[in-house]
Amino acid sequence: MPPRLTKLADSLPATVPFIGPETLERDRGTAFRARLGANENIFGPSPQALQAMREADAEIWKYGDAPSHDLRHALAAHHGVGFDNIVIGEGIDGLLGYVTRLMVEPGDTVVTSAGAYPTFNYHVNGYGGTLSMVPYADDKEDLPSLIARANETDAKLVYIANPDNPMGSYWTGAEIAAALDDLSDGCLLVLDEAYFETAPLDATLPLPVEDPRVIRLRTFSKAYGMAGARIGYAIGAAPIINAFEKIRHHFGMNRSAQAGALAALQDQQHLAWVIDAVAAARDEIGRIARDNGLTPLPSATNFVTVDLGADGDLSRALVASLAKQGVFIRMPFVAPQDRCVRISCGRPEDLAVLEKVLPSALAEARASLA
Amino acid sequence: MPPRLTKLADSLPATVPFIGPETLERDRGTAFRARLGANENIFGPSPQALQAMREADAEIWKYGDAPSHDLRHALAAHHGVGFDNIVIGEGIDGLLGYVTRLMVEPGDTVVTSAGAYPTFNYHVNGYGGTLSMVPYADDKEDLPSLIARANETDAKLVYIANPDNPMGSYWTGAEIAAALDDLSDGCLLVLDEAYFETAPLDATLPLPVEDPRVIRLRTFSKAYGMAGARIGYAIGAAPIINAFEKIRHHFGMNRSAQAGALAALQDQQHLAWVIDAVAAARDEIGRIARDNGLTPLPSATNFVTVDLGADGDLSRALVASLAKQGVFIRMPFVAPQDRCVRISCGRPEDLAVLEKVLPSALAEARASLA
Repeated sequence: MPPRLTKLADSLPATVPFIGPETLERDRGTAFRARLGANENIFGPSPQALQAMREADAEIWKYGDAPSHDLRHALAAHHGVGFDNIVIGEGIDGLLGYVTRLMVEPGDTVVTSAGAYPTFNYHVNGYGGTLSMVPYADDKEDLPSLIARANETDAKLVYIANPDNPMGSYWTGAEIAAALDDLSDGCLLVLDEAYFETAPLDATLPLPVEDPRVIRLRTFSKAYGMAGARIGYAIGAAPIINAFEKIRHHFGMNRSAQAGALAALQDQQHLAWVIDAVAAARDEIGRIARDNGLTPLPSATNFVTVDLGADGDLSRALVASLAKQGVFIRMPFVAPQDRCVRISCGRPEDLAVLEKVLPSALAEARASLA
Repeated sequence: MPPRLTKLADSLPATVPFIGPETLERDRGTAFRARLGANENIFGPSPQALQAMREADAEIWKYGDAPSHDLRHALAAHHGVGFDNIVIGEGIDGLLGYVTRLMVEPGDTVVTSAGAYPTFNYHVNGYGGTLSMVPYADDKEDLPSLIARANETDAKLVYIANPDNPMGSYWTGAEIAAALDDLSDGCLLVLDEAYFETAPLDATLPLPVEDPRVIRLRTFSKAYGMAGARIGYAIGAAPIINAFEKIRHHFGMNRSAQAGALAALQDQQHLAWVIDAVAAARDEIGRIARDNGLTPLPSATNFVTVDLGADGDLSRALVASLAKQGVFIRMPFVAPQDRCVRISCGRPEDLAVLEKVLPSALAEARASLA
């Protein structure tokens, strides 16, 4: 007899939300020359974070500190909130899993944008929730329609990434706060702020942390340059933050990553340098795009979404032809956003590779569709 | 309105399976002089693993490889099984969470021993399963009674740690294989082999990997000395291993930990050295116990369970009085096993601290009960 999975688990496909670059590299047999597809931060973490990880590696025989006490305290101080308003988790992916598990069971509806973060959808499906998808409007997540849909469907959760992935657009915090006033009681806004640090200042949500209508998710994977460390955190009202203690993996945090994140947080000078480097890279990607007759969209993130002016077929062909030439990028999944490709910020040497191969890759992509 | 948790999540307590040593240290205001309570491996990982982690830290800006391809292949080769028979996860804790989520929902019964690993119970409760607890017999998990109870209750899962924590005892693999012949179809044995590397060779389960009745869990946290890295793996038949792809956090692995675990696996010479060091430490703990009139139990693990010859009150008092003197140990939760304390193997200098303070700690513990 095969294992007796739950009815829900039995119904789920074996799937991965998206394919990682190492898998693509194994398939093609060589490494990419420019890794510009996973919205990682090639500028890397603070040297102090690296040093802290190296030192902590020597104590890797110890389990991590279950409450991530020092990091949690430092983040509370950094954000001017209480210890009870912060929970540390295994990246935003891990935290999205926890919040979904806490609130979603078969029969529950969750609202998100069609083409938004696939890993959130993976979690909602994985806990048996029903996804209700709202199209993007003008290449932004359609905030008013998301709220309306949540109200219509009595949704438990509504998800918005601000700034947005994969389009790079954003809403001001004031706009989100105003929209929340229209959200029905009993729906929680999951505000994924993975790209917050590279956004304009007015993306800041002007609401007290104890506002029970929203939980914010932050990460050390993007601007802090530690994607491989798996450290994220949630900021929210104490009752929802405390609920994570019911189900989280208390001893699930990597000990060196805890130390590295704390050191990274304490080096705001490095973060400022990264934010400048990201801004310069956005400009450079924009220039390269325009030089090739393409249209870069405004970006509040560490990537630039570039409008190819055609449709998903051309985008898919360009992703493939760039990969053949050693440049890893990705693209939005859903039309009409799939007329674009998404290029992560890179160092000057990474973008030089992009600039060199883009004209021929674009020609090849167009020729393949002719 | 508070967040609308699922009925199950609402019913769960905010709890932690056990208290970590850093939390105890913060409470007492100073660090422990000897950390002998968490069954960590103070002898530490292979220097090659440390070197691999240091090198990988420089690329911590990259997400980890989603399938942990290289480590998974190396483990498959190491165990002489297929790639499809291995899944890497965030420690055994993480893998126990996944297997529970795959198979347990409200209404399902899971069988384990009263006083066995609390984190497994945390997961079962967290997914709404009903725990059916079988008492230890002669300080061993009661294998025949566990199987019988699983059959009586139509259990989905039956959990055995072999070797066992917290008693340090073990069953031979042949005994477990024979017991499996009595297990009803449709119940999966979750065989937690966290302490396997320090056990006698006859603990090896003599069954083909495709046997659908059992899933084995291994870890880099114990003999490999990397508890803080959060790397474990499951070995089993392809259908159950493949089911993890439905729900696991594909990008949840720490990148440096992946590299470190691979290097640790490749340094079997260091592992052999650790196993010898652990054996010597077990002997030394046994000697210290006997010198104090106590009875060390035989151990197949990296800790020694010491019978104080009284009851749980004395054990609790000794844990407290040792902690006051800077020695961190733990003890079994459930009577009559709670007549014992559990002392993790340490270096000679750690055990020297234990030897020095044990007589007075024991006297203080006994006096406190007089």
